[in-house]
Amino acid sequence: MKTPGTRARPRAAAALVVATFVAAGGLLTAAPASAEEPSGESYTENGGAARNDDDRAQALRDSILDSDAKNVIVIIGDGMGDSEITVARNYAEGAGGELAGIDALPLTGSYTTWSVTEDGAVDYASESASTASAWSTGTKAVDGSLSVDVNGTPQATLLELAKANGLKTGNVSTAEIQDATPAAEYAHISKRGCYGPEETSIDCADEALENGGLGSVSEQLLDARPDVTLGGGSATFDQVAAAGQWEGLSLFDQAEARGYQLVRDAAELDAVVAADQTSPVLGLFTEGNFPVRWQGPEAAVGGGDLEPQSCTENPERLESGLSLGSLTSKAIDLLDGEDGFFLQVEGASIDKRDHAADACGQIGETVDLDEAVQVALSYAQEQGDTLVVVTADHAHTSQIVGSTPPGLSANLLTEEGQNLIVSYGTAVEGESQQHTGSQVRIAAYGPGAANVVGLTDQTDLFFTASGALSLNRDAAALSASGTASADVARIAPGEEFTVSVADLYGDRQVAAVAGAETDLGEADIIDGAASFTVTAPDEPGSFTVALTGTQTGTALAVEVDVADGAAPAPAPSETPTPEATEAPSPGETPESEAGLPPGDSRTPPLNSTGGTVSFVLAGAALTALAAGGLLTLRRRGGLAGKL
Amino acid sequence: MKTPGTRARPRAAAALVVATFVAAGGLLTAAPASAEEPSGESYTENGGAARNDDDRAQALRDSILDSDAKNVIVIIGDGMGDSEITVARNYAEGAGGELAGIDALPLTGSYTTWSVTEDGAVDYASESASTASAWSTGTKAVDGSLSVDVNGTPQATLLELAKANGLKTGNVSTAEIQDATPAAEYAHISKRGCYGPEETSIDCADEALENGGLGSVSEQLLDARPDVTLGGGSATFDQVAAAGQWEGLSLFDQAEARGYQLVRDAAELDAVVAADQTSPVLGLFTEGNFPVRWQGPEAAVGGGDLEPQSCTENPERLESGLSLGSLTSKAIDLLDGEDGFFLQVEGASIDKRDHAADACGQIGETVDLDEAVQVALSYAQEQGDTLVVVTADHAHTSQIVGSTPPGLSANLLTEEGQNLIVSYGTAVEGESQQHTGSQVRIAAYGPGAANVVGLTDQTDLFFTASGALSLNRDAAALSASGTASADVARIAPGEEFTVSVADLYGDRQVAAVAGAETDLGEADIIDGAASFTVTAPDEPGSFTVALTGTQTGTALAVEVDVADGAAPAPAPSETPTPEATEAPSPGETPESEAGLPPGDSRTPPLNSTGGTVSFVLAGAALTALAAGGLLTLRRRGGLAGKL
Repeated sequence: MKTPGTRARPRAAAALVVATFVAAGGLLTAAPASAEEPSGESYTENGGAARNDDDRAQALRDSILDSDAKNVIVIIGDGMGDSEITVARNYAEGAGGELAGIDALPLTGSYTTWSVTEDGAVDYASESASTASAWSTGTKAVDGSLSVDVNGTPQATLLELAKANGLKTGNVSTAEIQDATPAAEYAHISKRGCYGPEETSIDCADEALENGGLGSVSEQLLDARPDVTLGGGSATFDQVAAAGQWEGLSLFDQAEARGYQLVRDAAELDAVVAADQTSPVLGLFTEGNFPVRWQGPEAAVGGGDLEPQSCTENPERLESGLSLGSLTSKAIDLLDGEDGFFLQVEGASIDKRDHAADACGQIGETVDLDEAVQVALSYAQEQGDTLVVVTADHAHTSQIVGSTPPGLSANLLTEEGQNLIVSYGTAVEGESQQHTGSQVRIAAYGPGAANVVGLTDQTDLFFTASGALSLNRDAAALSASGTASADVARIAPGEEFTVSVADLYGDRQVAAVAGAETDLGEADIIDGAASFTVTAPDEPGSFTVALTGTQTGTALAVEVDVADGAAPAPAPSETPTPEATEAPSPGETPESEAGLPPGDSRTPPLNSTGGTVSFVLAGAALTALAAGGLLTLRRRGGLAGKL
Repeated sequence: MKTPGTRARPRAAAALVVATFVAAGGLLTAAPASAEEPSGESYTENGGAARNDDDRAQALRDSILDSDAKNVIVIIGDGMGDSEITVARNYAEGAGGELAGIDALPLTGSYTTWSVTEDGAVDYASESASTASAWSTGTKAVDGSLSVDVNGTPQATLLELAKANGLKTGNVSTAEIQDATPAAEYAHISKRGCYGPEETSIDCADEALENGGLGSVSEQLLDARPDVTLGGGSATFDQVAAAGQWEGLSLFDQAEARGYQLVRDAAELDAVVAADQTSPVLGLFTEGNFPVRWQGPEAAVGGGDLEPQSCTENPERLESGLSLGSLTSKAIDLLDGEDGFFLQVEGASIDKRDHAADACGQIGETVDLDEAVQVALSYAQEQGDTLVVVTADHAHTSQIVGSTPPGLSANLLTEEGQNLIVSYGTAVEGESQQHTGSQVRIAAYGPGAANVVGLTDQTDLFFTASGALSLNRDAAALSASGTASADVARIAPGEEFTVSVADLYGDRQVAAVAGAETDLGEADIIDGAASFTVTAPDEPGSFTVALTGTQTGTALAVEVDVADGAAPAPAPSETPTPEATEAPSPGETPESEAGLPPGDSRTPPLNSTGGTVSFVLAGAALTALAAGGLLTLRRRGGLAGKL
């Protein structure tokens, strides 16, 4: 506890990070004393509370980079309005202190967070699904819906587009990974609560797999296949698919079958050394949301009049051994590379504890988020090519007041020994405090950061991030150069051959139909490519395999000649392009050498109508591809460079 | 009323201003559709709600000017937190619309608004006196005190320093001009409520004139002598001075005696053609605060469930024929010139109506403020040398919620036909809603605007504004070149002569003592100069007049030889400097030709101990000065250039 009235900052822990920032420039730090801007040891002296060391013009010029960003990290404090930031700063660092991450971002603005109603009118008080959809897609969404427009049409997300443009992708949250903020980056569904097949069958029936929909939020996560996904929400993955290729399998088994590296705790995460499309990482550390870091007094009517209390560590959270900062650090390690990446990070429970009128809970989560921001900024400063954006999805209830309000309140004893009364006045005791509709802070560092300054809308962030990465936002165009090929031109009846697609970057899956009506199911597209092993029919003649990109509808076809006694022979691609057949560059490793994910050679339950055709998933098929020498995988970074 | 879901902006009225901004560049405007950032007619389309037209990097670079500002306009929305801005935008322009002034400022940040307690500890929920003192002086103040530090020591303000540096100054508010925000620029007192001599005698006794203090807030305003002062609060000026030179006179009479042009209504203000130190303008348009512009439903428990209502114009306000925009425009007209100026403008009743849980009231005042911002930005764009800063003193209670909260609320029908529920939850019905402690938005345009970006403290604004103007903040240094002179070297006993001071820019008044102990009282320093007419004693010999700058304590003395039959003869200045005796530049008009204020030759009641000496105030004395040719007035702009 410091003496009241003396300068509280910097604290030892934060000083290290701040010192790095100062050395590299471009981030904002507390003002030391200078001749020009007098600053004393005490806040009460002239200039003693000032934060601006000197004219910021040059620092800002340095921050306004015209160059493209190679990487973008979007960090969301759920419900982290300006009031929540100030509550956390006051408590943890003192009123004149600094949150070492959040407060260091040099370029700042405000953005509007309203959503739309089902009839397309505006809603001034939005929630996390509509707001996350807004920055994820650039399209305003109806409250409770995920990345669909007001008509229910899916809108491409930053994560999906980054992947389609050849970047690596990550999604980290302290919430269930199906919660609104992380889910908006990969799911398209009318109701955010349709986490698994069970809820979807009841609440989102039209969107259930059994009714021809895109499936539950969790199933859409597996389809989206980010390279790195870290969060809570494992419980839903015990649910069983109700339809589709994976009918009857739990989502965990499905994930394993589709090549995911499943991670359940800190030790397992430590052991992960790589994450890519062949072996994406799915880390689910808790059944539900993460336990929060801090706990303290419950807000109550008259709580502001009680003796002030300090927040304490939540022992349950410490057992997990994980923080948003450590997860962010691991995600960056796994995504960092020549491809570039898009990473979303969410501190989810600022909002959840604000709903619960839990001041210490929301403060601890803000501090937790701030550590993640520090990690991202350190990386970005080192790299020089990374845009970091820190913002909220919407504002929330908590307010700092001078005397006990009529609603709920809590009295906290802050780090500098003062009373901090936090008011929660939008719901009665025991009910959920409400989101509020105020514009919120958006702050950024790195290439493209200038676009957050001034007043923007939440949907602008989609364009800021995709613009910084120069993403091609037309998914169909990203599959327009797609090719299909077979490894034979002629084949004997009943023999197996391989049909492959390449350069279908705009799609996440491809569906195949052999002959007139034999449904071969879908295969995951990995780095633009996927393959099916096909058994030739018993009857000789021309035999066509039709392939359709699941997201863009891009249609391709391969024709082979089925003839008795014909030896398999290499066949040219139906629509060959130089890119599709180029040799690997020196130093590049074909994906087939990167090691196959466990379980991917297992034949899953088929959704086909029967017949003579079988298929294996892409991973195994790639072995044949590599052996045939027909197709090598294009590096994603190379693609991004051409867009 | 527009069709829900269609693009609401720009409205015809706002479009004109915005179009000007676009043409001149540097300000932010709504995003029109472009190929790169798709934007439809409807908010529900992809990109349809985006505000950022294109990459802002170049626009921001253009806004970051290293050059000094000639003028600074600080515009304060009292209690205008981000929530209040959003409430006003939603109601008046639609959620996707823009407040044509507030939202157009290109450089934005947040600042902290905490104050200090009497023992120097921090107070997380401040009020308007301490916060206004913080940006006015750069020193954190105790709640309720005006521009004194925690020990009660007066701190120089932006307005005072600007004046001392030779700039013109203005102070405009919709509140009583003695209210905290305008008062912090000119008054130094422990309790903000000590408006006039009567309250001061009771509540601020130590600071009353009769006890040797600086006097009431209103009396300190007359001492500070800004060139332009416009607001409410005339009632206090009917009070009578309890001590000092003006004892027994009403403050109105005192103001008139000291050369002020008194203005009571719009017509009288229209008639004012100039404002300067010789004839400063004091416009007091209402006895108390201005009536607000809009009125509407009172917030009530359950108010959010009532039928939504629109705001209506307040007929009382319209009768005044004045808005903050029109007052700002007039102030700028009067201040604009080669000297440069500092102008503070306050929209006071955003706060007052928030206290009263009056949503329409606070919205109308925000719209009123926004018009003032538009006026300032138009001027700044035209000039290219004017820093405009728009911010708040502290955050406030009002919040936008989705459903009726347990406390007070009101349901408004917005301009786009939607329900807007505003919650007031920090006090019960009938009591004053509380200020809140959240950091608030600060936004700027022009030279020095970069200094508001990121996180700063309220005290930083003092350094931002004074730095942009390159003000010398050492008042004593600004009087260090001060000179004193007499218009004679020898004089016959009982004859009158004139003693003058020049270049006492750091002081607002100068006190004179003739001989051993004859108190000549104080004279207002006008453009660095003041004079006393002195009657020589009856006894021959050396006779000294001692002069002391009231604010800086700068001590000067003039000695004349009193001898029988001696004819008056010009005497050199005691401490002559080239500047003090320089001839007027071509085109410059000596103040003495500019017309004397009415009433200034009247001899006020004296506080002297008697004796043979009399004096007149500076205005009349200047006539003698001009005739003697000893001293001409230095242009203020020339001084500013030398600092």
